[in-house]
Amino acid sequence: MSNQFGHLFRISTWGESHGGGVGVVVDGCPPRLSLCEADIQIDLDRRRPGQSEIVTPRAEEDRCQILSGVFEGLTLGTPIAINITNKDARPEAYREMENAYRPSHADYTYDAKFGIRNWQGGGRTSARETIGRVAAAAIGKKVLSSLCPKLEVVAYVSSIHHLHAKIDPETVQFADVESNIVRCPDAEMAARMIEHIKEVRSAGDSVGGIIECAVRGVPPGLGEPVFDRLEADLAKAALSLPATKGFEIGSGFAGSLMRGSEHNDHFYMEGDRVRTRTNRSGGVQGGISNGETIFFRVAFKPTATIFQSQPTVSRQGEEIELKARGRHDACVLPRAVPMVEAMTVLVLTDHVLRQRAQNGGFNPTP
Amino acid sequence: MSNQFGHLFRISTWGESHGGGVGVVVDGCPPRLSLCEADIQIDLDRRRPGQSEIVTPRAEEDRCQILSGVFEGLTLGTPIAINITNKDARPEAYREMENAYRPSHADYTYDAKFGIRNWQGGGRTSARETIGRVAAAAIGKKVLSSLCPKLEVVAYVSSIHHLHAKIDPETVQFADVESNIVRCPDAEMAARMIEHIKEVRSAGDSVGGIIECAVRGVPPGLGEPVFDRLEADLAKAALSLPATKGFEIGSGFAGSLMRGSEHNDHFYMEGDRVRTRTNRSGGVQGGISNGETIFFRVAFKPTATIFQSQPTVSRQGEEIELKARGRHDACVLPRAVPMVEAMTVLVLTDHVLRQRAQNGGFNPTP
Amino acid sequence: MSNQFGHLFRISTWGESHGGGVGVVVDGCPPRLSLCEADIQIDLDRRRPGQSEIVTPRAEEDRCQILSGVFEGLTLGTPIAINITNKDARPEAYREMENAYRPSHADYTYDAKFGIRNWQGGGRTSARETIGRVAAAAIGKKVLSSLCPKLEVVAYVSSIHHLHAKIDPETVQFADVESNIVRCPDAEMAARMIEHIKEVRSAGDSVGGIIECAVRGVPPGLGEPVFDRLEADLAKAALSLPATKGFEIGSGFAGSLMRGSEHNDHFYMEGDRVRTRTNRSGGVQGGISNGETIFFRVAFKPTATIFQSQPTVSRQGEEIELKARGRHDACVLPRAVPMVEAMTVLVLTDHVLRQRAQNGGFNPTP
Amino acid sequence: MSNQFGHLFRISTWGESHGGGVGVVVDGCPPRLSLCEADIQIDLDRRRPGQSEIVTPRAEEDRCQILSGVFEGLTLGTPIAINITNKDARPEAYREMENAYRPSHADYTYDAKFGIRNWQGGGRTSARETIGRVAAAAIGKKVLSSLCPKLEVVAYVSSIHHLHAKIDPETVQFADVESNIVRCPDAEMAARMIEHIKEVRSAGDSVGGIIECAVRGVPPGLGEPVFDRLEADLAKAALSLPATKGFEIGSGFAGSLMRGSEHNDHFYMEGDRVRTRTNRSGGVQGGISNGETIFFRVAFKPTATIFQSQPTVSRQGEEIELKARGRHDACVLPRAVPMVEAMTVLVLTDHVLRQRAQNGGFNPTP
Repeated sequence: MSNQFGHLFRISTWGESHGGGVGVVVDGCPPRLSLCEADIQIDLDRRRPGQSEIVTPRAEEDRCQILSGVFEGLTLGTPIAINITNKDARPEAYREMENAYRPSHADYTYDAKFGIRNWQGGGRTSARETIGRVAAAAIGKKVLSSLCPKLEVVAYVSSIHHLHAKIDPETVQFADVESNIVRCPDAEMAARMIEHIKEVRSAGDSVGGIIECAVRGVPPGLGEPVFDRLEADLAKAALSLPATKGFEIGSGFAGSLMRGSEHNDHFYMEGDRVRTRTNRSGGVQGGISNGETIFFRVAFKPTATIFQSQPTVSRQGEEIELKARGRHDACVLPRAVPMVEAMTVLVLTDHVLRQRAQNGGFNPTP
Repeated sequence: MSNQFGHLFRISTWGESHGGGVGVVVDGCPPRLSLCEADIQIDLDRRRPGQSEIVTPRAEEDRCQILSGVFEGLTLGTPIAINITNKDARPEAYREMENAYRPSHADYTYDAKFGIRNWQGGGRTSARETIGRVAAAAIGKKVLSSLCPKLEVVAYVSSIHHLHAKIDPETVQFADVESNIVRCPDAEMAARMIEHIKEVRSAGDSVGGIIECAVRGVPPGLGEPVFDRLEADLAKAALSLPATKGFEIGSGFAGSLMRGSEHNDHFYMEGDRVRTRTNRSGGVQGGISNGETIFFRVAFKPTATIFQSQPTVSRQGEEIELKARGRHDACVLPRAVPMVEAMTVLVLTDHVLRQRAQNGGFNPTP
Repeated sequence: MSNQFGHLFRISTWGESHGGGVGVVVDGCPPRLSLCEADIQIDLDRRRPGQSEIVTPRAEEDRCQILSGVFEGLTLGTPIAINITNKDARPEAYREMENAYRPSHADYTYDAKFGIRNWQGGGRTSARETIGRVAAAAIGKKVLSSLCPKLEVVAYVSSIHHLHAKIDPETVQFADVESNIVRCPDAEMAARMIEHIKEVRSAGDSVGGIIECAVRGVPPGLGEPVFDRLEADLAKAALSLPATKGFEIGSGFAGSLMRGSEHNDHFYMEGDRVRTRTNRSGGVQGGISNGETIFFRVAFKPTATIFQSQPTVSRQGEEIELKARGRHDACVLPRAVPMVEAMTVLVLTDHVLRQRAQNGGFNPTP
Repeated sequence: MSNQFGHLFRISTWGESHGGGVGVVVDGCPPRLSLCEADIQIDLDRRRPGQSEIVTPRAEEDRCQILSGVFEGLTLGTPIAINITNKDARPEAYREMENAYRPSHADYTYDAKFGIRNWQGGGRTSARETIGRVAAAAIGKKVLSSLCPKLEVVAYVSSIHHLHAKIDPETVQFADVESNIVRCPDAEMAARMIEHIKEVRSAGDSVGGIIECAVRGVPPGLGEPVFDRLEADLAKAALSLPATKGFEIGSGFAGSLMRGSEHNDHFYMEGDRVRTRTNRSGGVQGGISNGETIFFRVAFKPTATIFQSQPTVSRQGEEIELKARGRHDACVLPRAVPMVEAMTVLVLTDHVLRQRAQNGGFNPTP
């Protein structure tokens, strides 16, 4: 179960960083949607290493291949398998990790769980695993644009380390996010962030930050009572990404500092549409979308791999020093933006199909 | 699927606030564990209304009845059904909600989803639904104490509104949590919190806050790669509780303000046990427990029900004013502590059985 | 998972024969369907003991109570919990089973699996467990009559021991099935079957037989490729009933004696509807319904409980003799007809919702 | 969900007959089992076309490639992806199927369900899909031989058309099954079957038959109460294979012709092992294995593809004649033996892990 996500639009990812490749199988996709490899490649390219001067220079082209489920350019309703072969694998660069547990990586915990691990490049714990998610979400986008054509998902970097941009989730545009290599839609702040990442990298260090995500044009009624609340599924989706440490929706942690009389979102009518004056709920009430913009924030810790000597232990229980080699991101956030976007799309696609199953269709998107 | 939680220790909750009752069916419980109603009642009593002067005075005794799955005091391995009859239901007190959508409640979204709702007391969205979870977790505790006897879960109030206690998750004791009615283990701060809740309630207003949870004695190796990471499942569990807006584990959002060289947890050996000098990871690395204390924080918004007139709309699309009647918590956190604890127990119990399925057993708890 | 059935219309049954009661929770039911206890009771009464002179005289009235999920006579879309209290439990009648393993019962295997069993009346293995399934299927019928109004499920006894009726699945009527106590729509053969069951019972012995089921008016397109084929799910459903030993659909085992040129169903057009001249496929091709009548047969072994002394062993490993006491069916088939019907309804309801999820709706029922 | 099988040892198959290839992802496999491609290839070779003179001469070599989940010859506990590229695809050979619905194939039903189909070689409905299952089961065998070393699964042809062999499931040997190309362990009858298949093929016709399967050395206690009974899961597994029409276990349909006094399996002690004198139960009682040999039978209809002109209809609703071209099996049973074996292994592997999850381990295999 562990390597699957979603109930009706269900994806199964597989693959290690330095094995034969990575990939995904998407089950439950509606039939007769147009789909080709270019539809998927566009998002993989936003995720891949080597795309700009502030990300890892690994030269993976992450070229995807659709192996099944598409016929003459249309989805068949059968499983869509996508394969991405690893190209720039240099397993020998990781030979020193064969016995050392890298601090704040999953080397020790995988060993504790399985009694074995693929030490080459982090194996299954590598961010490379997210390729399958991004590929699957590219298909999810096709489903959403067919069933909820007004729905749009925009994720972006809002903080890098101590540098905070202030972005309005109601108006932020995808084009602005993509207009710079750090994927912060505030161009001025983006320039400072880029500068900061370069400095940190030069120091052999790393930084984290915060990614925000806005979902506009959501039909009211998505999400389910009790366990599969939309915010619960979004939280799980976000926290399933590597390096994440927190999730908050709407007013979030700051909401705990308000009184009810300040926090409540009053309803009013806009034509025949029920709306709220404020949106501290973040577009979700009782686990179900209310048609307002969904927005949430995801905290990323600084990259664990740093180019400084650190104390650690070996598999054999010796205390040793370890200094990373290889090619790594000093800050994962620019490449994590399409990952957050992908997980959001996967959650929404699943809930759209669930809504159709139980309730037969949707409310019109506002 | 919506009303089920867990894969191997799977619970199904049911019930509305003002219907015949609420309950839970627990599937997958190991056999031959001692279990009686008193084992469950003790936690239901910590959750129930009317338990102290700062919670809602609804006079529910929440008496549980085990209907199946237990024979001569031992679990059978078959489903355990637990029923709690509603006693103090006064549906007429909610007659005015029949048409009005209460601000920041789920009245509108349930209607948008299902085209129908049980307007009596919030129906399925009532915190009353969590009774089933707390009951199921009382059984989960039996499983954990059988398989991981050193594991302990301690949840507590760390903030109410602007009042913040500083508690050490390594040492906080359950007895200190239960020593006062607000369930904050810092006695002095607890007194101030209680005072504050009373004041807020007198003003017809409400407040939220933050609950922290510490899990000590976790065997290394729990949790799964990729989607069912322990922190992802904990985040979903937490965000599935009513009124929650955020989740953070270990360094959380503050971790995004650190450099990698500050954030990384260095490994060292304590005898033959692998340990970390710091615990910014919060006891989980790569989605899998490392044997250090797991700790996380959950943000609760202020209770939506306030005793002040608020603008809203009716089911018929008229703009109206609504002022709540009835009996409500001005602050849900004291009663939410056993809920957070319960969801944590449910996640851990499921992962303990999953670990046993795939890997045959556990590492010894440190 | 074990005690759950269905993906989207998912039921969870619970309860032992001689515990507090039995019941079911139905998750995923569409909202706004009319439902009351009488809708369910009608099918429970067809299943219950004591309904005629040829079934066990246990005096259970099997009165159902809806505890949740229905409001003002309509389903809410939330879980529907149904409880049926055990009334005529006489656990002491089973005291001798405390240590003896009854031949061809599940006493030994439950012990082998769980190391414990509820020896009172068979515990969870009792046919009493099927009450929850029949109750859930009564709700499933509401879903089907809302979404596929022409669909009808008719199950009936076609054989008792060596007495075989020949019934046409295209024309058999529910009223004819219910017109006699053995539930065989051939009145003359039914009389012989009733006589035979009485004779067998007088001899302290038991008999089995075959139940057939016809489903007419099925929209083409239900069922799924590969694992969740409609016939695979029907086979699992049937074989999950107590005392079943075989399942065949369409031409079944006899189909293995034909040549392809004899077996193939030729297509032709009836107006704009695609039809087949013959129906050896049994209404399913490649796992998916083709709009022809689905029909299948389920073999039931003779009841294991007989009133003759039989050699067996005790829990302590002694070889002993055992002679049953208590009240038992000499032939379960008359009461198993509503069980087969129920499992069929559950499979179809689930697939109807699955079809709606992935494909947005149905083909019109022929 | 449709394309997945198993709960804890969960496989996801993908691929069409004439797309890029077929494959499978196996999730939940225990770690540290030795595995290489040769382990899998051996079973794929038993399933592949072109292996003997009585099966289709398609020249697929079905060469498997492990893409993930294995490191230095050992399973990692992470998903194992296996890819098999299609080599001998001649899609143009199927051009006439673009519009025609082949009788007793799934062409029409796929169109009715999805509104689209891959008409090349049957697409997803091709027996080629079973490659993924056979590959996954080769891994399942590794799990079983690690956890239940005495367990053995032997499937074999017992009937071809009207030719019936009588084989003892207690003693049948794998080597005898594999000693001839029809996979019937009765050498004399096998020779007649081979002759018969050749004659039928010469006539442009096809035949079906019956495959039996014996599972010896099963630990008591596998299988689960109620829905996931071992026989229910085996029935679903068998009926999920192409061309199957029936399943029976133990006494099967013939059991319905016996009295209880004839049918019951009496217990006795063999040393400290509980055994039954007869085995009409087929090794399963109340859904749970009792340690006796499990045996069941699966009916296969004659291959739908015959080389005779048959009336059918086109996608456009015209009545037409169709005569197959291409390369097809006149009898699928020799190649279906490893498929039945594979599905059996998948069911058992899943239940072995489920037993370990809930009950911590096994009874010793008798």
